Amino acid sequence: MTGRLRVAVEGLSAGELTLPDAASRYVARVHRARVGDRLELFDPARGERAEAEVVALGRAVRCLVQAVERAPDVGALPVRLALALGKGDKPEQGVRDATALGVREVVLLTSARVQGARRGPERLERLRAVAASAARQSGRATIPSISGPLALERWATEAPASTLLLDPRGEASLLGALKQLAPVDGALVTLLIGPEGGFSDDERARLVQAGAHPVRLGAHVLRTETAVTAALGAVAAYFGAL
Amino acid sequence: MTGRLRVAVEGLSAGELTLPDAASRYVARVHRARVGDRLELFDPARGERAEAEVVALGRAVRCLVQAVERAPDVGALPVRLALALGKGDKPEQGVRDATALGVREVVLLTSARVQGARRGPERLERLRAVAASAARQSGRATIPSISGPLALERWATEAPASTLLLDPRGEASLLGALKQLAPVDGALVTLLIGPEGGFSDDERARLVQAGAHPVRLGAHVLRTETAVTAALGAVAAYFGAL
Repeated sequence: MTGRLRVAVEGLSAGELTLPDAASRYVARVHRARVGDRLELFDPARGERAEAEVVALGRAVRCLVQAVERAPDVGALPVRLALALGKGDKPEQGVRDATALGVREVVLLTSARVQGARRGPERLERLRAVAASAARQSGRATIPSISGPLALERWATEAPASTLLLDPRGEASLLGALKQLAPVDGALVTLLIGPEGGFSDDERARLVQAGAHPVRLGAHVLRTETAVTAALGAVAAYFGAL
Repeated sequence: MTGRLRVAVEGLSAGELTLPDAASRYVARVHRARVGDRLELFDPARGERAEAEVVALGRAVRCLVQAVERAPDVGALPVRLALALGKGDKPEQGVRDATALGVREVVLLTSARVQGARRGPERLERLRAVAASAARQSGRATIPSISGPLALERWATEAPASTLLLDPRGEASLLGALKQLAPVDGALVTLLIGPEGGFSDDERARLVQAGAHPVRLGAHVLRTETAVTAALGAVAAYFGAL
């Protein structure tokens, strides 16, 4: 990361671009950019970036945008978050934090304990918008791929190899299990988190049979949104220290 | 942790006790307890626990409470959270998650970037109530000690020895620094987290001069509430794997 100013935009194309109000204020007032200064523009929703140069200041800042390129996923973790849909906006919070912490994929699951969670294409679109907003705020130039919802029982039949199931009854510690899995060559670790109240005993048994490793984090029972962010923090810290 | 039912109450004394409605439902309906079943009652706000026996069922459950004891702080981390006060209820979220994750102390700080955060004794009382509620929900029998707010500059002059300052510009990784500090003999690690927008350059310089270690978590900029929970998750995972 250089000291060059990075600015999130929605929609990038080569040529002249007038920055929207908030971005203009950020560039001109907060950072006191001058004509000729170079910027990096990024659009996480499309996963694109471009070099640009300030060509005019004023109420709105105008830039000359160079070639638009695919943005590298800087700092992304080799991690997939498999998240059981819950009530309210818990999945939105999960996706927001997963994005800022660098998760590469999010898979949404439906499970026995939560019926009636909002789903359907609008939900997925909404979650992608949440991810794009979190990426712009955190400075990440890409968003995770977000898919689902899949029924847990169907997902479990093909559960990915390195799956850590967060579980207050787990005997292994999260970091201990992560060290043992030692995923290599771009393989992803899957962090699987149940709904409020957890997975049912049947679901848990099926997951363990499919090869998921129950792991615990802390000595107490965590709310789902706390569990997601805390576990992702632990995983981010693990990969950040390698 | 045995399979015995644990029930949070407010106010414990030896002798007969009628459980409040929610606790009665939990014991009688959810867990179908029977007369003669043994319970563990705990009151996190006072840090007390007692053995008890169900003596009568019905709409309200009655128990015979044995001697009330000081509750051991099971699963508590040797961690102090030093949290700069922010706007809104971010400190409440921080205290809630710190409690569930086992933090032993919380110190609130005031800093340059946030003026006008609500403070005063009512705020501290409110935060202790949030901690007690989080402890009851998570099954922790105690709450962290909560103190402050102290002015950052004053706190920094006596900043505790093992202080990790969460900072996107930090060069060390959180886990790497934690391993190097290797606190022993009941000494606490202090995790210091700034307000939204971070500490000012002056404040950061002063903290580093006082011996705080800037550490990063992930490659992107985190919202304060995400940073608190994610960093505590990493620290909980670290101590959970020792």
